[in-house]
Amino acid sequence: MSRIAARLAELGLVLPPAPPPPQTVTFPFRSVRIVGRRTVIAGHGPQAPDGEDASPRGKVGSDLTLEQGYHAARLTALSMLGSLERELGDLDRIACWVKLFGMVNSAPGFTRQPAVINGASELILSVFGDEVGAHARSAVGMAELPFGIPVEIEGEVELHP
Amino acid sequence: MSRIAARLAELGLVLPPAPPPPQTVTFPFRSVRIVGRRTVIAGHGPQAPDGEDASPRGKVGSDLTLEQGYHAARLTALSMLGSLERELGDLDRIACWVKLFGMVNSAPGFTRQPAVINGASELILSVFGDEVGAHARSAVGMAELPFGIPVEIEGEVELHP
Amino acid sequence: MSRIAARLAELGLVLPPAPPPPQTVTFPFRSVRIVGRRTVIAGHGPQAPDGEDASPRGKVGSDLTLEQGYHAARLTALSMLGSLERELGDLDRIACWVKLFGMVNSAPGFTRQPAVINGASELILSVFGDEVGAHARSAVGMAELPFGIPVEIEGEVELHP
Repeated sequence: MSRIAARLAELGLVLPPAPPPPQTVTFPFRSVRIVGRRTVIAGHGPQAPDGEDASPRGKVGSDLTLEQGYHAARLTALSMLGSLERELGDLDRIACWVKLFGMVNSAPGFTRQPAVINGASELILSVFGDEVGAHARSAVGMAELPFGIPVEIEGEVELHP
Repeated sequence: MSRIAARLAELGLVLPPAPPPPQTVTFPFRSVRIVGRRTVIAGHGPQAPDGEDASPRGKVGSDLTLEQGYHAARLTALSMLGSLERELGDLDRIACWVKLFGMVNSAPGFTRQPAVINGASELILSVFGDEVGAHARSAVGMAELPFGIPVEIEGEVELHP
Repeated sequence: MSRIAARLAELGLVLPPAPPPPQTVTFPFRSVRIVGRRTVIAGHGPQAPDGEDASPRGKVGSDLTLEQGYHAARLTALSMLGSLERELGDLDRIACWVKLFGMVNSAPGFTRQPAVINGASELILSVFGDEVGAHARSAVGMAELPFGIPVEIEGEVELHP
């Protein structure tokens, strides 16, 4: 078993399967785009363990509490790891994380985006460790997100040669 | 004639000229920045075939319909291709697309950003094909965009060695 | 003295020290992430010369004027340079700037984001010169930013081999 797969099992984490195709729109893009050693991760939203979009939807600070937002960011990171595993075959191919761009569907006046996106950053650090998992990051407040999801995150990792 | 130029002609597509400098602000940045094989594309808005900013301006979901937003995203992709052609000389130098970050000026409650940004993704795929044109993507809702444009997209392509 | 340090002194610019850790949230990410020659800069906000978050906070177009927003973007660029200097040891290691992504906490109807983010672009060009400092850029309007800061900017530079 690969090192990261073993670490996921140790943490009791299960990666969700590929999401079902959306019913009202096509997605003419790649969840993960590999260019040399660079691996660019498209915007992901929170996915439940069965692969469906996780509920609840809405804005953090009104429809969702901070804690629910944190959990949504964690489920988003798991969705990103699921996409990476399907594309790479083995998450051990990841040499290091590069960046996350964390977008929070924000109620007016909600300014705790970093505490929300920590749900993703802390998951990645716990799985990959402090050196491989280290990443630059922004955590910012969006006016709207697709389908009303509370969190969307894109990012980039670098592969081993 | 280059392969991509021939494909644009076959599709009846004409790339707009460089936009006129804005009258109320300077733009102290590059539309396209080349660093080795990486080619980073600044945020572009929809450009009419004559080079002017395309109308209408405003928010998708109130001032613009979804269909008008899709068309604006398509005109934005054509503006990006115009900038790339002026900078690269020949669009055949593009080995592959890497990513798009699609920003939709969104009316409150408008959550169909992916269907809007498809106007850009589908244009790029039709011009470059499914392999070269493939890209990671996010499509998200902004509170405001410069000058009230309905769509702004930035991205990155990789050049042949 | 390094070339860029001399240029900063010539311009009378002093880079702020590392910001104090925030009191209400952890920041489990890196201000600067180096991967090979790529150097990715996390989202930064305006920092006062003493290292504290610069006031005022709020939205440009209501709580802050355009001029105050421009100044905040300039202080944000200085904060980014401070992080780069601490991480790189010497800003002369920067071969070129690649991109800025400039986010303005925008009051409803405020659409002059490029004039705000010019505060950062012009600072970088004045310090690094027109060739090294050249960068691709987007300047866009966010619904909310962390702690109510008026401007947040992330970016990327490339190092000398």
